[in-house]
Amino acid sequence: MNCEIIAVGSELLTPYRQDTNSLFLTDRLLQLGVNVTFKTIVGDRLANLANAIRIALGRTDIVITMGGLGPTEDDLTRQAVAEALGIRLRRNPDIVGALYARFAARRIQMTDNNARQADVLDGSVILENGRGTAPGQWLDTVYGEHRKLVILLPGPPTEVKAMFDDQCMDRLRAVVPKRTIAMRTLKAAMIGESQADARIAPIYTKYKDVDTTILAHTGDITLNLICSKGDQETAQARVDELAGKIEEELEEFIYSAQAESLEQIVLYYLGMHASTLAVAESCTGGLVAQRLTSISGSSRSFVGGAVVYSDELKTLFAGVPPSMIEANGAVSKEVAGALAEGIRRKTSATFGLGVTGIAGPGGGSEEKPVGLVYVAVSDGKQTDVVERRFGGDREHIRAWTSQLALDLVRRRLK
Amino acid sequence: MNCEIIAVGSELLTPYRQDTNSLFLTDRLLQLGVNVTFKTIVGDRLANLANAIRIALGRTDIVITMGGLGPTEDDLTRQAVAEALGIRLRRNPDIVGALYARFAARRIQMTDNNARQADVLDGSVILENGRGTAPGQWLDTVYGEHRKLVILLPGPPTEVKAMFDDQCMDRLRAVVPKRTIAMRTLKAAMIGESQADARIAPIYTKYKDVDTTILAHTGDITLNLICSKGDQETAQARVDELAGKIEEELEEFIYSAQAESLEQIVLYYLGMHASTLAVAESCTGGLVAQRLTSISGSSRSFVGGAVVYSDELKTLFAGVPPSMIEANGAVSKEVAGALAEGIRRKTSATFGLGVTGIAGPGGGSEEKPVGLVYVAVSDGKQTDVVERRFGGDREHIRAWTSQLALDLVRRRLK
Repeated sequence: MNCEIIAVGSELLTPYRQDTNSLFLTDRLLQLGVNVTFKTIVGDRLANLANAIRIALGRTDIVITMGGLGPTEDDLTRQAVAEALGIRLRRNPDIVGALYARFAARRIQMTDNNARQADVLDGSVILENGRGTAPGQWLDTVYGEHRKLVILLPGPPTEVKAMFDDQCMDRLRAVVPKRTIAMRTLKAAMIGESQADARIAPIYTKYKDVDTTILAHTGDITLNLICSKGDQETAQARVDELAGKIEEELEEFIYSAQAESLEQIVLYYLGMHASTLAVAESCTGGLVAQRLTSISGSSRSFVGGAVVYSDELKTLFAGVPPSMIEANGAVSKEVAGALAEGIRRKTSATFGLGVTGIAGPGGGSEEKPVGLVYVAVSDGKQTDVVERRFGGDREHIRAWTSQLALDLVRRRLK
Repeated sequence: MNCEIIAVGSELLTPYRQDTNSLFLTDRLLQLGVNVTFKTIVGDRLANLANAIRIALGRTDIVITMGGLGPTEDDLTRQAVAEALGIRLRRNPDIVGALYARFAARRIQMTDNNARQADVLDGSVILENGRGTAPGQWLDTVYGEHRKLVILLPGPPTEVKAMFDDQCMDRLRAVVPKRTIAMRTLKAAMIGESQADARIAPIYTKYKDVDTTILAHTGDITLNLICSKGDQETAQARVDELAGKIEEELEEFIYSAQAESLEQIVLYYLGMHASTLAVAESCTGGLVAQRLTSISGSSRSFVGGAVVYSDELKTLFAGVPPSMIEANGAVSKEVAGALAEGIRRKTSATFGLGVTGIAGPGGGSEEKPVGLVYVAVSDGKQTDVVERRFGGDREHIRAWTSQLALDLVRRRLK
């Protein structure tokens, strides 16, 4: 079975806002074996909305709308679906009552327009909204002699997620033919998309029954393998076999075969070695620390560190000798190593991580161009320093550098 | 005139990837006075793609496709447009030659499939691609007795941006009727979307000729005001008048009337006062420093600071007495103030910023629940401390807290 997702709202046609609900829905539908074949984004105009719904009914089995269920005059989804299908809307007194009760509980007078949220498509099942006022609707119907499923969801992401998981997944499982679906997600760091693809394309193209998607994001690669051919066991075996071959080919670049993030893996290795980490960041300015502390429980292995943006702070917090900075420059192999070793010593952590570089756009020179970075890790006995030169803008250089720094710790601990 | 944007690619129908080009295009089209009335996302299947193009031709004046112009068998946009319009594709020998030359310069043998990129729709203008191999196409044509403009763009964002700005904007200006378009962007911090809307809706609803959009993102609100009625001067005056009234109503919450970010504003105020800032962050773990250092030139006013995740580091880097932590807990008004004052003193900055709190999901208690945060700013004489309790998950709490911290500095310096 296939599905079209229609995101409703004029704000989704501005440069300022984007539909994100459809990523969540696509994930859930994929789990059920339903393919999303089209996504449409349409504004709050009745004619355009009815047009989009009619087109979707003509080309897919399941049509899911999101948004346009609220109380205002711009909320037209119910009306548009009624028009497209040629069925009636009836005001449901139970919903009206519940809306009144909800407002009364908050000691707010309900305005009349709210009652529009109680307009129900003839024959539809009401989907309760535990997180907002607008209920959803589930309609099993016929359009042009074909059976169609039409699901009306609200717009706010928290409402969409709760309503779909709690009230739609089981209902869909009952009507969608059971399909094989086997998946695996591999993660790799510090390898470019084209370089990774050049190495693994000769492998995955031989697995025509497995769908392989490569998603690259500043030094972080996600490989999604999906197979929906044959029985479940065979499909999973095929996916696992391909995953194994890709792991072998990309070897040290692969950091997770279970979809974990690089931050999680670094913290996991630190925990496994009963070690702690401290960081001294110059050009990344807190980005490495921020990534690590975004993980709940990171305080067990990550003690903190310093953002040593000025030369004075490099000396103050990481004990880098001013003479070393003067002799080599703040962006140098020596200073990176001293930052790593110094922050380790000061904080008594097992490992110290030092980061220095030129994020740009200013501050570069012929000898030390924008994008030049040094990253070092030290345990007091051995200090590893890596030099790299990244392209792109400030944000890009900082993101790649934070990835390089975390990956250096991972490789050291592996 | 109106426009439909069609994003092409099966990967855009997975949970892993999303079209973002359309936000850029919508922005540019808005500047020209072209409304985007539909966006469609479709996979790499010829029948679906031709269907989407036919539908778009039937309901809008301008159809822009992105993606599907590459060399592989999955790149079907040229063919689908030819089919939808009933016109022919011809292989352009000049483009084939240029492709050969491009590959030769890199000492790579060109595979035959690359020549498909030289297939040109009869009557179309070729849009050169300075950043990739696939050229775009611009076709001024007739469909069902109506004049239609069809623009084929590549998929990669950098290629889309360069090609559209360099080769499409001027061409569009020549064909799109000149329209009034006046805009203003206001930014506000630390006020909820519904609270802001409740206060300003009575104002902006009186300006029916101005389109007001509110975009909220973890404590940061963007208000976009757009007017396209009347002549340019009158429209701008209306937008400016409404902007003035909104500024008056939201007063101290508004931090920019020119679309700057809060980080930029904080750094701007610091520069204006010839002051410097240092931060000591516990629960935000580097997020505040990272936000400030994301701005180029931040080193002039931001010296750095410490990520004091462990209690020991609070003492080591910000001089917080262990007895104070023991008496009040690390998450307390006292410790926040001591972090601000301590990091200021240690680093000799003009202002110190201290952040402590419980980001969760673990670590909360009855007395000090998850989401409780303290933020303090100090200049050595006066220390301001703010207590707040945020809801939501770890990421949400950290993002709101970093916003609260930056806003506290802004209010102090204003």
